[in-house]
Amino acid sequence: MKRYKITIEYDGGPFAGWQRQNSALSVQEVLENAIEAFCGETVRVHGAGRTDAGVHARGQVAHFDLRRDDITVKTVRDAINFHAKAYPLSVLDAEIKDDAFHARFSATQRSYLFRILNRRARPALERGHVWWVPTPLDAAAMHDAAQVLIGKHDFTTFRASQCQARSPVKTLSELTVARRGEEIHIEVRARSFLHHQVRNFAGTLKRVGEGKWTRDDVRRALQAKDRAAGGPTAPPDGLYLMHVAYDSSD
Amino acid sequence: MKRYKITIEYDGGPFAGWQRQNSALSVQEVLENAIEAFCGETVRVHGAGRTDAGVHARGQVAHFDLRRDDITVKTVRDAINFHAKAYPLSVLDAEIKDDAFHARFSATQRSYLFRILNRRARPALERGHVWWVPTPLDAAAMHDAAQVLIGKHDFTTFRASQCQARSPVKTLSELTVARRGEEIHIEVRARSFLHHQVRNFAGTLKRVGEGKWTRDDVRRALQAKDRAAGGPTAPPDGLYLMHVAYDSSD
Repeated sequence: MKRYKITIEYDGGPFAGWQRQNSALSVQEVLENAIEAFCGETVRVHGAGRTDAGVHARGQVAHFDLRRDDITVKTVRDAINFHAKAYPLSVLDAEIKDDAFHARFSATQRSYLFRILNRRARPALERGHVWWVPTPLDAAAMHDAAQVLIGKHDFTTFRASQCQARSPVKTLSELTVARRGEEIHIEVRARSFLHHQVRNFAGTLKRVGEGKWTRDDVRRALQAKDRAAGGPTAPPDGLYLMHVAYDSSD
Repeated sequence: MKRYKITIEYDGGPFAGWQRQNSALSVQEVLENAIEAFCGETVRVHGAGRTDAGVHARGQVAHFDLRRDDITVKTVRDAINFHAKAYPLSVLDAEIKDDAFHARFSATQRSYLFRILNRRARPALERGHVWWVPTPLDAAAMHDAAQVLIGKHDFTTFRASQCQARSPVKTLSELTVARRGEEIHIEVRARSFLHHQVRNFAGTLKRVGEGKWTRDDVRRALQAKDRAAGGPTAPPDGLYLMHVAYDSSD
């Protein structure tokens, strides 16, 4: 038996999210079907991050086991890509790992990017790939306010009601906001996240960017430990799972 | 009567190109219909560049005249965007110009970008927005060879057979090739171009990037003044009309 780690890029648009569902297309299902198509084995693919419907990935990581042990990493990459070619999904890389490696539980850091297109005219080329906010946003104010979220906190204010995590306490390593031409990029890094956490950060920081909220309002929202105290959930279109990090031994 | 200049972004994917056709959707038709929908006037929209099917624009320019003279540039921009919202097209800007301004004939420079995704794994997020070339390309060699094309030449080798320009002689101001991460960007600038000229440059320079052709081969191809002596036509997916320049008096 061999364990394979794969790194995947996908456009979240046509998918109902990472996780397999009965009635809608998922990234997991497309991968599992492509693996079965090329080697005949029915596998379970474990992802590092269970991205929601419409959320994109530039560096999602997953693992699965094959009973046959003569399949090279190049074959894994190219054969999945061949059999999944109807979908906007691409295996960028494949590696062999030992049995201790788990895409989800071995991950030490996850990095997300949230892209806001901040201009009067709606997106044409970036449609579905950004959150369009036509009113001018102050990226520096957003960055400054975001810093109150850094560190170990009870993030109940930014947690979706359907979140399945046992604890709302997470440690946020990085949260930066910067203007890049017509876009505003929110970059976030932590060991793990609550459901909708990044999108709830984005919806809250937009209020700061518009001048409706201050840094202190964000701090008070965090301290309230109440979802109703936070800003709205931003749409999935702007969110990208960029990178998943593991210990060098993995 | 008032003449309006508009700057437009669009995803070329769903369009049969800029120019109005009987049986297929064009950018021109979508704009003309949107203008009629908001002000009731049947207009002809003149574009600076007649982009082909699948070719994108970040800065296409067009003009049209309205008999009513009480319509502000903000209304023009927002009303076209509202009525064209079913399409991946966005008016970025609108200005009022005098009658001497013509989007096509007054243009002094046109800039195009051609994006190649140069990696083994096919595009997922950039599907339809890049030319995917999986074999490694030498961007420096491509740039070096491209310099033989700069200046005033008979570009018959890079001209589509259906090209309607009166003369194959054009003056190329700039042609740079540079690697940007996994992508190779070809940037081209001239007063005007022949039909398929940029895509034929891209297909020819790919041969250089693969090591199949040298700088001298590109020079010989140019000098042959024969379409059969050039490289293949690259697909439209990677091509973007970026900017159209006018004299400051326009």
